[in-house]
Amino acid sequence: MEDYESILEHYISLINERLTEVVKAREPENLYAPIEYILSDGGKRIRPLLCMFACETAGGDPYEAIDAGLAIEILHNFTLVHDDIMDNSPLRRGKTTIHLKWDLPTAILSGDAMIGLALKTLSNYSNYVNFGKMIEYFTYGYIEVCEGQALDMLFNNKKDVSEEDYFLMVRKKTAAVLQTSLVLGGLCGGAIERDIEYLKELGLNLGIAFQLQDDLLDLTADKSKLGKRIGNDIIEKKKTLIVILARERAKNDGDCKLIDKIFSNETIPVDLIPEYIEMFDRLEVFEDIKDIIRKYNKKSLETLQELPQNNGSKLLEYLLTKLNERSF
Amino acid sequence: MEDYESILEHYISLINERLTEVVKAREPENLYAPIEYILSDGGKRIRPLLCMFACETAGGDPYEAIDAGLAIEILHNFTLVHDDIMDNSPLRRGKTTIHLKWDLPTAILSGDAMIGLALKTLSNYSNYVNFGKMIEYFTYGYIEVCEGQALDMLFNNKKDVSEEDYFLMVRKKTAAVLQTSLVLGGLCGGAIERDIEYLKELGLNLGIAFQLQDDLLDLTADKSKLGKRIGNDIIEKKKTLIVILARERAKNDGDCKLIDKIFSNETIPVDLIPEYIEMFDRLEVFEDIKDIIRKYNKKSLETLQELPQNNGSKLLEYLLTKLNERSF
Repeated sequence: MEDYESILEHYISLINERLTEVVKAREPENLYAPIEYILSDGGKRIRPLLCMFACETAGGDPYEAIDAGLAIEILHNFTLVHDDIMDNSPLRRGKTTIHLKWDLPTAILSGDAMIGLALKTLSNYSNYVNFGKMIEYFTYGYIEVCEGQALDMLFNNKKDVSEEDYFLMVRKKTAAVLQTSLVLGGLCGGAIERDIEYLKELGLNLGIAFQLQDDLLDLTADKSKLGKRIGNDIIEKKKTLIVILARERAKNDGDCKLIDKIFSNETIPVDLIPEYIEMFDRLEVFEDIKDIIRKYNKKSLETLQELPQNNGSKLLEYLLTKLNERSF
Repeated sequence: MEDYESILEHYISLINERLTEVVKAREPENLYAPIEYILSDGGKRIRPLLCMFACETAGGDPYEAIDAGLAIEILHNFTLVHDDIMDNSPLRRGKTTIHLKWDLPTAILSGDAMIGLALKTLSNYSNYVNFGKMIEYFTYGYIEVCEGQALDMLFNNKKDVSEEDYFLMVRKKTAAVLQTSLVLGGLCGGAIERDIEYLKELGLNLGIAFQLQDDLLDLTADKSKLGKRIGNDIIEKKKTLIVILARERAKNDGDCKLIDKIFSNETIPVDLIPEYIEMFDRLEVFEDIKDIIRKYNKKSLETLQELPQNNGSKLLEYLLTKLNERSF
């Protein structure tokens, strides 16, 4: 797989180069400096990679899909800027968040402008026959991610979040934008309707696995790699599947108290996080979450088999496997 | 003109009906209730009217452009929701602003979702030959309005805002969305390239006149009609053309002190507003602003003459005249 890794890195550097072009030297500076700040901090560029590889899988030139991929990358980063305000997060990828480095109005407005930039980038396809569909899927991803964030916020104050609630939220908040990445790539490559459906299914399963992995890493990753504090989701009282499963299993008083704190209005101190980790581990929640992740990863790879088998699908497979194994 | 007034009212009721359809019964409720709240509070619907009349002027059926008009109306209301957060405004059209009635995260996210809704509404034209151009102009209006708001914020802390700065800001913040309304309408009606250019010029002149009128009404309107406090722009230290002209003319100590307050970090108490109004009046600023408004209105009407003359252009003329005479 050594070769695939260097191909991936090559693509990432192309994506970063093009992203710099799209964002650079825009005015007013108070609007665009924060956008450059977040877009240049080296995200993993998963979404543009998915887009480009899906394009190649569909039989197109992967470079053809780079601007569609960037539109999604900008959309994704927009959600980070606004979510960080709403969650009052201090750090993102190890750097101070925009609303703290600048201020609240700047963070709101720069986020807003990112959507304009994403649409402008996507408009580079305005003369494509598929442009109407591209805008429709972009809009789908955009609306879903807003609704997913709304559900996430709703669950912060909800006393009874079910597994079903959690999966609905994840489908909207995480999976939809990954689906959009794949579908836009497919549309750029001229994918047939049946393959667009497979790309959507692939994005859905990948998205669920991806979010569960994110939830797990929040508690089990190396802090320096994660770029934010360990146990952030617990402190923010996120109703992850980890918490929902632990709640079903908690029997003794100590465990119940820890769980109840997440569903209460109490502030959870950072130094309680090790106790949470010990409990989740002891209740075998981490083990079961890993099983569920494996299940969704397997589904993704199976769906991938339904698509045309070529260099694009091989790159997609490599990326999926890499995401399965990620440690941050 | 009696007839035109009832035609206008008929169109407004059609717009409101369709807007209700577009927004109704969406979930999650915490995301969509604030959107219904702001969209149902009876704005003047100037932008969809411009869009529909421009479509008719271009030779199309005005109803054909209703969804394009709604997309702009939703975009416009999105800017109000986010601007009200940034300016920390308590009231909008006489009602509590969303970030105060709900909370900050809800206002940010509902604003975001409105852009999704606008794109979804605009996507109803995805099979039009002109759809690529429609998205391009929508994106233009969207980016310009973000940049205009950024300039507005920048000027809040700037000590030397020139007339040129002011006009640049107005072109972006106010005129661009009006231009977009007219151009989208023109595109729906199949306008020729030359007429699209006239519609842009019309929107520009109309936008400048409109903003100057807004600035003037902020100080001279009847509070109950305005739906917000008189002198709000002064309290928010907006560098309007009124302030810029008064600064050039202020000679005596009292006037200079009043002007300097706007360019300082001092809080301006509401009970100073009558003194500002007296000064602007005495320095003949209001009179000159009215002259400038008349100049831009005249330009708008002249541009309108360049477009095909028909029922659509007559309705546009009526709407322009009505906007010139508006008192709130």
